[in-house]
Amino acid sequence: MADVDLLLTHGCVATMAAADDFGCIADGDIAIKDGRIVWVGPHGALPAQDAAAVRDLRGRLVTPGLVDPHTHIVYGEEGLVDFEVLSQGGGRPELESRGGGVSGLVAQTRQLSEDALYAASRARMSRLISNGVTVVESKSGSGLDFETEMAAMRVSRALGRDLPVTVVSTFLGAHGLPPEYRDRRDDFVDFLCQTVLPAAVRDGIVDQVDGFCDAVGFDHAQIGRLFDCARSFDLPVKLHADQYTDFGAAALVAKYGGLSADHCEYASESTVQAMAAAGTVATLLPGANWTLHETQKPPVASFRAHGVPMALATNCNPVSSPTTSPAAVMHMACYMFGLTPLEALRGFTVNSARALGMSDTAGVIAVDHSADLAVWDTDDPRGISYPIGGAPCLAVYKAGALVHNVAPPDFGPAP
Amino acid sequence: MADVDLLLTHGCVATMAAADDFGCIADGDIAIKDGRIVWVGPHGALPAQDAAAVRDLRGRLVTPGLVDPHTHIVYGEEGLVDFEVLSQGGGRPELESRGGGVSGLVAQTRQLSEDALYAASRARMSRLISNGVTVVESKSGSGLDFETEMAAMRVSRALGRDLPVTVVSTFLGAHGLPPEYRDRRDDFVDFLCQTVLPAAVRDGIVDQVDGFCDAVGFDHAQIGRLFDCARSFDLPVKLHADQYTDFGAAALVAKYGGLSADHCEYASESTVQAMAAAGTVATLLPGANWTLHETQKPPVASFRAHGVPMALATNCNPVSSPTTSPAAVMHMACYMFGLTPLEALRGFTVNSARALGMSDTAGVIAVDHSADLAVWDTDDPRGISYPIGGAPCLAVYKAGALVHNVAPPDFGPAP
Repeated sequence: MADVDLLLTHGCVATMAAADDFGCIADGDIAIKDGRIVWVGPHGALPAQDAAAVRDLRGRLVTPGLVDPHTHIVYGEEGLVDFEVLSQGGGRPELESRGGGVSGLVAQTRQLSEDALYAASRARMSRLISNGVTVVESKSGSGLDFETEMAAMRVSRALGRDLPVTVVSTFLGAHGLPPEYRDRRDDFVDFLCQTVLPAAVRDGIVDQVDGFCDAVGFDHAQIGRLFDCARSFDLPVKLHADQYTDFGAAALVAKYGGLSADHCEYASESTVQAMAAAGTVATLLPGANWTLHETQKPPVASFRAHGVPMALATNCNPVSSPTTSPAAVMHMACYMFGLTPLEALRGFTVNSARALGMSDTAGVIAVDHSADLAVWDTDDPRGISYPIGGAPCLAVYKAGALVHNVAPPDFGPAP
Repeated sequence: MADVDLLLTHGCVATMAAADDFGCIADGDIAIKDGRIVWVGPHGALPAQDAAAVRDLRGRLVTPGLVDPHTHIVYGEEGLVDFEVLSQGGGRPELESRGGGVSGLVAQTRQLSEDALYAASRARMSRLISNGVTVVESKSGSGLDFETEMAAMRVSRALGRDLPVTVVSTFLGAHGLPPEYRDRRDDFVDFLCQTVLPAAVRDGIVDQVDGFCDAVGFDHAQIGRLFDCARSFDLPVKLHADQYTDFGAAALVAKYGGLSADHCEYASESTVQAMAAAGTVATLLPGANWTLHETQKPPVASFRAHGVPMALATNCNPVSSPTTSPAAVMHMACYMFGLTPLEALRGFTVNSARALGMSDTAGVIAVDHSADLAVWDTDDPRGISYPIGGAPCLAVYKAGALVHNVAPPDFGPAP
């Protein structure tokens, strides 16, 4: 029997195990056995091994499998009406009047069968995997009634079971107010806390709880009740926070020791301090900033100064962030928010793993971690976020299994 | 013998043959024989044919093969230093001091062997083809000396010969001033007109002539001399125009009946009128606008009002537009310049074909045109430019031959 199942050789290995750089091994090998990394280091330094398979990466960049910590990937049709409105400079009110936005999404999602919701989401999740993702957070919140919210969380679970990706299922019932609860926002929060979340816990389909805390969303008291309920079930919390105004929402999630505050464009200095003290990650979402023509940028300098880890996410959703490409988002984060290429890659690896409470198991190439790896069409760790649109992902390993594999294109006779 | 070589069925066919819409055939077939389109129309309407091969597109979007009318794709290494400088908010002066920018590119390109230049460019061109491009313009201008300029044009020709793509080779010697001609800009123009361009014509490696007309580039008189020289060889002209200031450059190229004025951020109303009168296309380059943090947008409303056709291009280059993805550029054009999804797709098809003087042979799905086609992972013609990063290209046909083909990713057991 072979000592190792797979030996990857001659990679430019960005381990992400260092605090201040990519932790790069310029010409590195990675040994894998039983789905886990058993050795990583410079080529030639590995003690003699009998490998069942060897793959020469020919200098190409290999990173940890990406961790996408904020998606609304479970939905049906794409948001082409939203695209037309937003790209022409329209805003959220115009979306609603054209039948788009979150209300339109909710109305449409409620009409889908669970099978149809699964099929559409599976295709999208497959695209995300082929773009380098091995761990993904998937939120409910497109249904806002009992059946559709439960269906969305079941779909998240099913995708994690059927596809080679780890799925963290998040309950985002507090995403918006459905029409049947108009003017009864507190009653809707009661419904979420007393009916939907307990059922989701009972069925084992929820891992985290999220909400939309904003002047046009849920207030501090309402989110507080939701978070108290989450705490009663030992579920970690996170929040769509301070996207449109300084609402103190990121401070609220920090007060609850939450995993992450997401968006954060308008987070104040005191909020950033509260996040730092609580160890709450700032998950930045350039896609929504872009599509909504938001000119306020998240306080990146302040996050740096206070040591708040910054994560990035695709925020995959049909309204404000239609993308399954982390690399495209990394590129945007560099140009729009001034993140360095290192911060961009940390944002989809170590820091996003932390945003999901998985620091010990994902986001770093290290011995004993699951062999979740992505291989890129570049020989430099800055090269993922360098091209407009992001670099192509050539291969993905999930727990040591090759689940995506394309050759770089070439045509005609060899040169 | 079969009546047709290939029959594509059940496509959402965006013919681009209409002036005001996508010219879509919702459920369309395309018949191909001897590399040309011999029939296009609704499924079932084609008279009985004996097809050697049939491919069911299952409702996926098929468009004309994309025409990318402005690239600097012939270069060596990627511009990671430029990326670090520009993404952190630096500008052109800082690029030069870090060894990047056009000067750095020229210094580096001069050191490459022609084989090395070919190999790097071929890999990049292959990526462009796999992203849906079947016709591409490729400029010299990264060498600025006799040998390197000639080598770049030979590489453009070689790529068109070796790869399944039509390459239009453009002489852009007037891209910048090389160090050996410091303070002798007129002498350099003499060198271009008297030495390089005649040699390129003699060797049959040049199709068009381009220049950089700007306060920090070449002035009207110098570009005029270059254009007169081009005219003496019956070569059409175009120009990098009005990117940084209103320099009247687009009006100059219009005066020469040029094919296109490219960039055009600062083009004035009277310049737009001159372009309209001359039939000069405005080729917009969102990538450079993005990486250079340019806040001035091209006068899209004025182009519309005066009927100036707008083309788009990747502007593929390592400094200001590192991308081989037209779809990513289309997405940007919608959000940054307010182009509609229709204008974005026209920009990479009918209008870019016109910008290359190829209206009669490319950019439209029509009988007798070369069967250059791209198939996309969407069922809607707006869907190419909808996702951040652009939609994936699933298949490319060049003159009827399938040259790129990937299945949408899926994993695990079928649902």
